[in-house]
Amino acid sequence: MRVVRDVYERYGFEPLETPAFENIETLLGKYGDEGNKLIFKILKRGEHEASGEADLALRYDLTVPLARVVAQYQNELPKFFKRYQMQPVWRADRPARGRFREFYQCDIDAIGSTSPTVEAEQLGAVCEILVRLGFEGFSVRLNHRLILTGLLNAAGLAASQHGDALVALDKLDKIGIDGVTREFEARGIDSAVAARCLMSFEMPGDERPTDTLRRLEHTLGEGDSAVGNLTAIVTLAEQTAAHGRIRIDLSLARGLSYYTGAIVEIAVSDLPGSLGGGGRYDNLIGMFLGRDIPACGFSLGLERIIVVMTERNMFPAKISGGAVDVMVTFLAEDLKTDALKLAAEIRGEKLRVDVYPDASQKLEKPLKYATSRNVPVMVILGENERARGEVSVRDLQTRQQDSIPRATAATTIANRVRLIEP
Amino acid sequence: MRVVRDVYERYGFEPLETPAFENIETLLGKYGDEGNKLIFKILKRGEHEASGEADLALRYDLTVPLARVVAQYQNELPKFFKRYQMQPVWRADRPARGRFREFYQCDIDAIGSTSPTVEAEQLGAVCEILVRLGFEGFSVRLNHRLILTGLLNAAGLAASQHGDALVALDKLDKIGIDGVTREFEARGIDSAVAARCLMSFEMPGDERPTDTLRRLEHTLGEGDSAVGNLTAIVTLAEQTAAHGRIRIDLSLARGLSYYTGAIVEIAVSDLPGSLGGGGRYDNLIGMFLGRDIPACGFSLGLERIIVVMTERNMFPAKISGGAVDVMVTFLAEDLKTDALKLAAEIRGEKLRVDVYPDASQKLEKPLKYATSRNVPVMVILGENERARGEVSVRDLQTRQQDSIPRATAATTIANRVRLIEP
Repeated sequence: MRVVRDVYERYGFEPLETPAFENIETLLGKYGDEGNKLIFKILKRGEHEASGEADLALRYDLTVPLARVVAQYQNELPKFFKRYQMQPVWRADRPARGRFREFYQCDIDAIGSTSPTVEAEQLGAVCEILVRLGFEGFSVRLNHRLILTGLLNAAGLAASQHGDALVALDKLDKIGIDGVTREFEARGIDSAVAARCLMSFEMPGDERPTDTLRRLEHTLGEGDSAVGNLTAIVTLAEQTAAHGRIRIDLSLARGLSYYTGAIVEIAVSDLPGSLGGGGRYDNLIGMFLGRDIPACGFSLGLERIIVVMTERNMFPAKISGGAVDVMVTFLAEDLKTDALKLAAEIRGEKLRVDVYPDASQKLEKPLKYATSRNVPVMVILGENERARGEVSVRDLQTRQQDSIPRATAATTIANRVRLIEP
Repeated sequence: MRVVRDVYERYGFEPLETPAFENIETLLGKYGDEGNKLIFKILKRGEHEASGEADLALRYDLTVPLARVVAQYQNELPKFFKRYQMQPVWRADRPARGRFREFYQCDIDAIGSTSPTVEAEQLGAVCEILVRLGFEGFSVRLNHRLILTGLLNAAGLAASQHGDALVALDKLDKIGIDGVTREFEARGIDSAVAARCLMSFEMPGDERPTDTLRRLEHTLGEGDSAVGNLTAIVTLAEQTAAHGRIRIDLSLARGLSYYTGAIVEIAVSDLPGSLGGGGRYDNLIGMFLGRDIPACGFSLGLERIIVVMTERNMFPAKISGGAVDVMVTFLAEDLKTDALKLAAEIRGEKLRVDVYPDASQKLEKPLKYATSRNVPVMVILGENERARGEVSVRDLQTRQQDSIPRATAATTIANRVRLIEP
């Protein structure tokens, strides 16, 4: 999360948080029929609880809440507005590997511009994050909702069935060509039309995305605006960390119903599904505001990234934060006051100090505890040491132990820890 | 949040997060009748949605979820376990100044020890945080559930009415003596008993808490274990940042029903309510596990701290994070590729860079945007500059502008920003 936050800030995004729940009407109807069913709904309270009705719902993604915020506070926000948001979202999905009912999304969004620099910068930020986390063989699948519309039209599909077709197409990864064909059939799409649709989605992407885009221009007509838009994005993204990673993939649909322009997903070799995705949604804010404001965003799925990094041993051996440098332990009850005093002194040296809470004449328990927490140094306050004006210090890796003067113990210990953990 | 996290880690607490919702039975019955009503409940999903029943609920504090986690994973956790947790909780309360339906709690808890070093260390951590945030005139109100029980018994109140009396007493701050008297009456407590209860709670605390504790020992009897426990806590806490701040306050009750030992709240002068509170709850984990494990915790209320700090101008003029160092703008469409290239170069210098997305021949809009974001430096890519192999750099505070070579622009700009913002 530190890497994600750092890169997002370096790309000029500002942090934003929104409440966990929204009014239920804000969320319903934004994610398609399947999405509606997966929204967690909150029961009315007090005298209305018995009605069994819901008035609030847990956020399902970070995009719709952002659109609501932008519509609500548009007079206070700059015309062009970039934010990042790293918060959990909730979906009543069946849990599976790397898929939880509560999971973190790490989103960036830019509001107020239709410029392709927005998409290019977002792809750059996301690719930079993945590279810094150690991902190598990943690619950016890029498509455009209007190209999908053009292909569906060319295949002879009625506009009223486009939504159904895209929901089915979105599952291609999971259920394969046969599965999608069956979904088309179940939704009453003519089999010849379905076959033509699938054929055009299956057009393979070239090594160079601009080659694919040129071929597409032949199909969809010279000067097609969607092809022009993707060409601009691809060209600009070459200046960013997305360099060389973009593939035009006509089978990419994105399930959510609010996208209007370029859509994108990150694919990692040997991993079904994606590490994140996004796209342009120029009409969503208009659903709240009554007039459209252009917008574009990308969302990284934190848990999926963690699952892949764990399985592939990509985490560094030692991650800082949450550990303890020194444990203070005392061998008799009347030494605990001095134990807290010494702990305070060592904390004054900016070290992280834990105090074992119970006096114990045997060191077995505190040692076991210190070892379980990977503490490098243990300080022991005993009666004998006190009589000599000293404390004992034990290096828990070498198991060497010696006595040092109590008066200067904090600085001595701090210097030793800094030698062990520079 | 950075200060809170840093201090908690220096005191040896490890980070933990828990899910936003728990099974509804986990939460019900842990917070008293008034708490039960304030829990947000989540409707069952799918075919059970129409039943109007709830099976999940949003967490109401961080303590009960922790107790559930400790009970569930006790075989995997060390016998002594310290964690901190900074996450939102939800209460269906009426919103007011500094009181929201969703708010962050910043909790520390220590599981597995009855030692008074636990309380003393927690008080030390919390006081150190408040001092580092700039709070001065705050004090630690300390009491003990068993002392309250002793005083209620001495006043002649039946044990079955102790719970009601504590809930009423907990509101003393908000509703005053008369209000509490009326609550006692409404709960059917005899008026003479009520008056005796209120009199003992009103016993004023001395400057030195040990003096109050000695007087209490006279009332409750020599060797009273609760008085002894508070004496130990007070003595140990003198070695920490809580030094000189503790007052014994017999009117402190804490509303939550799970406390069993020492209870504590932070009071700030001229502020009703508290910045945080906590206490010992040795039986709560037992409700899940079937056998008791001692535990003690403290919770800081983030929003209340922010409200007070804002009202009292305690925030530093400049808080790092979320800002932008450099804004890149371009005056013609065909310069946008180089704008992204230059942005990437400056980001390589570890600066935070924003790109204004639209080409604009007039600088008015980008300047307005950069000013609204407090950006110190703007880089301008224009046709004339390009012809000379240069870019323009504008200091947005002095409004001075000059041209520098494009080839070395990133390092030149980085050096200038570091002069402005060392």
